[in-house]
Amino acid sequence: MTYKKANHVASFRFELQHTDPNTGARAGQWHTPHGIVDTPAFMPVGTLGTVKGLLPEQLKAAGAQMVLSNTYHLALRPGADVVEELGGLHQFMNWSGPILTDSGGFQVFSLAKLSKLTDDQVVFRSHIDGSLLELSPEKAIRIQEQLGADCIMCLDECPPHDVGQDRLRAAVQRTTAWAARCRDAQKRDDQALFGIVQGGIDPHLREESAEGLLPLDFPGYAIGGLSVGEDPNDMYKTLDFTTPFLPVEKPRYLMGVGKPVDLLESIIRGVDLFDCVMPTRNGRNAMAFTSNGPVKIRNAKYQRDVTPLDPDGPSEVGRIYSRGYLRHLFVAKEMLGAILLSWHNIAFYENLVREMRQAIFENRSAEFRADQLARWGSDP
Amino acid sequence: MTYKKANHVASFRFELQHTDPNTGARAGQWHTPHGIVDTPAFMPVGTLGTVKGLLPEQLKAAGAQMVLSNTYHLALRPGADVVEELGGLHQFMNWSGPILTDSGGFQVFSLAKLSKLTDDQVVFRSHIDGSLLELSPEKAIRIQEQLGADCIMCLDECPPHDVGQDRLRAAVQRTTAWAARCRDAQKRDDQALFGIVQGGIDPHLREESAEGLLPLDFPGYAIGGLSVGEDPNDMYKTLDFTTPFLPVEKPRYLMGVGKPVDLLESIIRGVDLFDCVMPTRNGRNAMAFTSNGPVKIRNAKYQRDVTPLDPDGPSEVGRIYSRGYLRHLFVAKEMLGAILLSWHNIAFYENLVREMRQAIFENRSAEFRADQLARWGSDP
Ligand SMILES: [Zn+2]
Ligand SMILES: [Zn+2]
Repeated sequence: MTYKKANHVASFRFELQHTDPNTGARAGQWHTPHGIVDTPAFMPVGTLGTVKGLLPEQLKAAGAQMVLSNTYHLALRPGADVVEELGGLHQFMNWSGPILTDSGGFQVFSLAKLSKLTDDQVVFRSHIDGSLLELSPEKAIRIQEQLGADCIMCLDECPPHDVGQDRLRAAVQRTTAWAARCRDAQKRDDQALFGIVQGGIDPHLREESAEGLLPLDFPGYAIGGLSVGEDPNDMYKTLDFTTPFLPVEKPRYLMGVGKPVDLLESIIRGVDLFDCVMPTRNGRNAMAFTSNGPVKIRNAKYQRDVTPLDPDGPSEVGRIYSRGYLRHLFVAKEMLGAILLSWHNIAFYENLVREMRQAIFENRSAEFRADQLARWGSDP
Repeated sequence: MTYKKANHVASFRFELQHTDPNTGARAGQWHTPHGIVDTPAFMPVGTLGTVKGLLPEQLKAAGAQMVLSNTYHLALRPGADVVEELGGLHQFMNWSGPILTDSGGFQVFSLAKLSKLTDDQVVFRSHIDGSLLELSPEKAIRIQEQLGADCIMCLDECPPHDVGQDRLRAAVQRTTAWAARCRDAQKRDDQALFGIVQGGIDPHLREESAEGLLPLDFPGYAIGGLSVGEDPNDMYKTLDFTTPFLPVEKPRYLMGVGKPVDLLESIIRGVDLFDCVMPTRNGRNAMAFTSNGPVKIRNAKYQRDVTPLDPDGPSEVGRIYSRGYLRHLFVAKEMLGAILLSWHNIAFYENLVREMRQAIFENRSAEFRADQLARWGSDP
């Protein structure tokens, strides 16, 4: 069996610049066909080819280097062939930086109504119109090649976090077998295909999953099946024993994570790349992350508060707009409220990983984490 | 009776730079405490202290010089005292350029449930919570002084366009009486208070209204009671006989107008200033104004159309984003669709008046109008 070596094309290169000897936190640079990503990095989520409410230039201004789009959603609307005809994701959404797409697996196993799962493929019903659809490893790759992101994902099986050991092991084995098929199916040589480590919070299954994937020599590895309802401490413990199974010289991507505290705890444990809807979803729900912890801006106490949202924080929105004005926008159901808080929250996340990166170079990642947690209070 | 001469403070000055001798179209510069407005000018509408979906920097980038906010809406939410405590409208909405507020009269007579109208005041029910509220000339001025716009409006009576001659005449007389009370009530000397000419489409009533207002020597005059359901040709005819009643050296503001064709026809008839929700409302409803006429972007024919929305037009949005992508955003109910089309439409309007202004200086305003109408087709 020969594998195409997308990881060996000159356009992808992960340079590990520094590891904090006190924690294992890593700072690196990931070279992609659409530019360099300084890691650790946080990707805003643009599910349907748009980070909700924000223009690409606003994302860049907030410090975003790379964005994620969801294969499942785009395959349903407008369809991968339409995105391809419209020039691929970069042109489609006017984002000139790197893009990552997931495989669609997570949504098929969570959002859609599952119809039939076999070793060959998964059959499910669209959550949009109820139509019956199929997803296989080959199809997941085909769709992601049509979408044209820089970094694409193998199709994995994502069982709920509370299933038994047998079901978890079966999912790991199927994920490994599907990873090989994804590798075989890949035709484009300008996309980095990542394998996804599964195995819940079980050390043996995580090891088994990593051991199955490593021979396929992926240019990077994702950690799936976390932040799906388990206790945060279980997630951190799982990272403690999972990242050592992964190659040091490849980027590590923790899928769908998380809260600010989760980012810091995961970076400390050797993770390089993150995505999460939290900054935008919370922004739309009137919750802002600030230097001094979360602010629920609808609170009546902000009605006449002329204080900027986050006067000493990293975001322009936070330094300019008063809490009273932002509250008014949400009370009056004005779009601008969601826009400003989404933008602010992304700037907060991007600044957080950028400052953590600096702390890693200075071997003070643990102190940085402790300082931030102390500032944020009890619900970071 | 002595009147405070807000029009004589140095910060307000209307400089009529050129009149096209072929049409009467005017180019000017209106100096305000928050900057100069090149006229003819179009003001985007920020009803609740936000032009829906757009940031102030986006408005500026689209060419907007001045924005309008609605006194009625702001008085209900968040309340004029709240806006005042939050620093006044400029600071509240982070708009450093000139702002105009209407008096609230139009909304009281159209949106609210009218309870009792006397010469003294109008009593109405809030369309938000049904509470009983009062508006008088003195109160309209007080509220607008709290809001703190550069240009404020006298309270006028705005009858429906299809009422009889007696009711129209009564409204003109009440509007004149209220204008004098507004003038008397004005305390701040850094706001230009405009009188509003009423009188429907009747030449004699328009003349009577203007004659009643001119002795009050307002620093500018608004034309109200148009674009309220009458035939467009009736509006143009009304402008034909109304603008000659107004002083040449003062700015003329046609309230709530209008379609692109209405702007051109009104500028030709000597109007300097406009506001309308159309660019943003139509934008939210997936309708784009383009160099070649309106585009309904939801149309299925655009699904795979890689052509930019308006490749040769003035807006960056129109030159960058494909019709296929914009259609996708609306079909998928993504906020970015409304944002991009609102921004695009405002840029279209601002460019239109800017080009018309240039045409006026070159005495070709009639040709410019004809050229645009020919390009736009049948529904401009
Ligand atoms: Zn998440
Ligand atoms: Zn209008």
